[in-house]
Amino acid sequence: MKLATLQTEQGTTVVSVVDQANELTFFDLRSFDESLPRSLKGILSLENGLERARKAAAQAEEADQQITGTLLAPIPQPGKVLCIGLNYRDHAEETGMPFPDEPVCFSKFSSAVTGPEHPIRIPAIAKEVDYEAELVAVIGKTCRNVSQADAPQYIAGYMNGHDVSARDWQIGRPGGQWLLGKTADTFAPTGPYLVTADEINDANNLPIKLTLNGEVLQNSNTDKFIFTIEEVIQFVSQFMTLEPGDIIFTGTPPGVGMARKPPVYLKPGDQAIVEIQGLGKLQNSVEAWN
Amino acid sequence: MKLATLQTEQGTTVVSVVDQANELTFFDLRSFDESLPRSLKGILSLENGLERARKAAAQAEEADQQITGTLLAPIPQPGKVLCIGLNYRDHAEETGMPFPDEPVCFSKFSSAVTGPEHPIRIPAIAKEVDYEAELVAVIGKTCRNVSQADAPQYIAGYMNGHDVSARDWQIGRPGGQWLLGKTADTFAPTGPYLVTADEINDANNLPIKLTLNGEVLQNSNTDKFIFTIEEVIQFVSQFMTLEPGDIIFTGTPPGVGMARKPPVYLKPGDQAIVEIQGLGKLQNSVEAWN
Repeated sequence: MKLATLQTEQGTTVVSVVDQANELTFFDLRSFDESLPRSLKGILSLENGLERARKAAAQAEEADQQITGTLLAPIPQPGKVLCIGLNYRDHAEETGMPFPDEPVCFSKFSSAVTGPEHPIRIPAIAKEVDYEAELVAVIGKTCRNVSQADAPQYIAGYMNGHDVSARDWQIGRPGGQWLLGKTADTFAPTGPYLVTADEINDANNLPIKLTLNGEVLQNSNTDKFIFTIEEVIQFVSQFMTLEPGDIIFTGTPPGVGMARKPPVYLKPGDQAIVEIQGLGKLQNSVEAWN
Repeated sequence: MKLATLQTEQGTTVVSVVDQANELTFFDLRSFDESLPRSLKGILSLENGLERARKAAAQAEEADQQITGTLLAPIPQPGKVLCIGLNYRDHAEETGMPFPDEPVCFSKFSSAVTGPEHPIRIPAIAKEVDYEAELVAVIGKTCRNVSQADAPQYIAGYMNGHDVSARDWQIGRPGGQWLLGKTADTFAPTGPYLVTADEINDANNLPIKLTLNGEVLQNSNTDKFIFTIEEVIQFVSQFMTLEPGDIIFTGTPPGVGMARKPPVYLKPGDQAIVEIQGLGKLQNSVEAWN
């Protein structure tokens, strides 16, 4: 099942999505189950939320209850946006860096999250803004101290994600903390939809690609993860309770702009597309934000 | 005005607080204004929320509409928990470190937030858990690209905060990111209440103190800030939109446990108290969490 968050004239609602060669149609879950929450986080927080959504989606698609609107991020306000750095073997090998012993964890604020129909906005203070295609895992149930073996039952599904990164603020600024370079408004596009975990055979083996203005600049596979998604969940859940709707960016493959000669940075007018097999196409334009 | 969030048998609600020598009494705002939101973030998000709360508080106190319950963090689920590191001159001088050129920014997840009547829980994975007394500023209105001169109008008020820090995870782990050492569940106690900005003459000149098991271990004044609260807001708002209920930890003065010989770390059974002039007393016990 593919679920998305749609801004309609009546407000925000959760829809099921049919994707035919990147032509998306949306079906209104609440036309068959009015008591379903209007947010995906709300649906995930219900004991049987995904099953109810699945039933409502089947009825809405059967009855062709299409609606239209503007796609937001599937989860517009996650409780956590946790990110893993340096997590692809081919990226680490390319740069000659040793593999990290533990997942490198940083975060973005939920105010960085944006959807597939909104632009990435470059604030005046950031000069070297880079792209990073990433697989995003979405937490479906509350958990803490989870084993790797149990981790899959806490994953609701997956989305394309774009970890936009201002290198001039991420690297070498006071305290060495990446937060400011990573969390500017709009620096965390996700979408266009969440694909439930049952539709993904192996999230640790998915082709992942970033295209900038028609040119493929990142092209790898999540089978190059240093830490699998299950290892990441086991590790971080020793520190914190994961909650429905929390999202985890899992790191980026090689080919980022700062590693190119000359470097390639995002600029107004650019079109960036993240595509992970089975997760559709996350396209964002780039504009300046003064 | 002092506002707190109280867990009662009827649910969570916002109360006004009278504090007489650390004896707190609570007055139910909704007994006089039923349409007030049940969360402080909700009240701050209203155009005239604080004025309505002030009117309701006056009526409730006048009518002696006391209620009882368990104090939660004033804002149990902030959209952002932004933290500033290395922000006291006396601390920087003590350690011989140069003053940072810009505020050092890191974050905690909102799942780290806890209140004054709940313990700090040390997860099994953290061995060197330190205390840090901090002044916390609460954002009252949405803002971006704010000047220092305009910053005060976006501050709703202030609270005591405790930036609990697992040094064995904060320092020197992969990627040098502080997040994991800072964001374990319960590592961000705040409270007991929010004091509105009008009651604080100068937040950049407040005595601040941390007492552990009856011994004063931090004792300074926010006049030692390297970056004032207004400078911090101006700086960070170039990157991100600040929203009602966002909270900003403003750094800690000297005397932390890791700088002592031998080091002092929190252990089960400890009692830690943060006290900033005018903000009451934030006391938390410490326990192990397996």
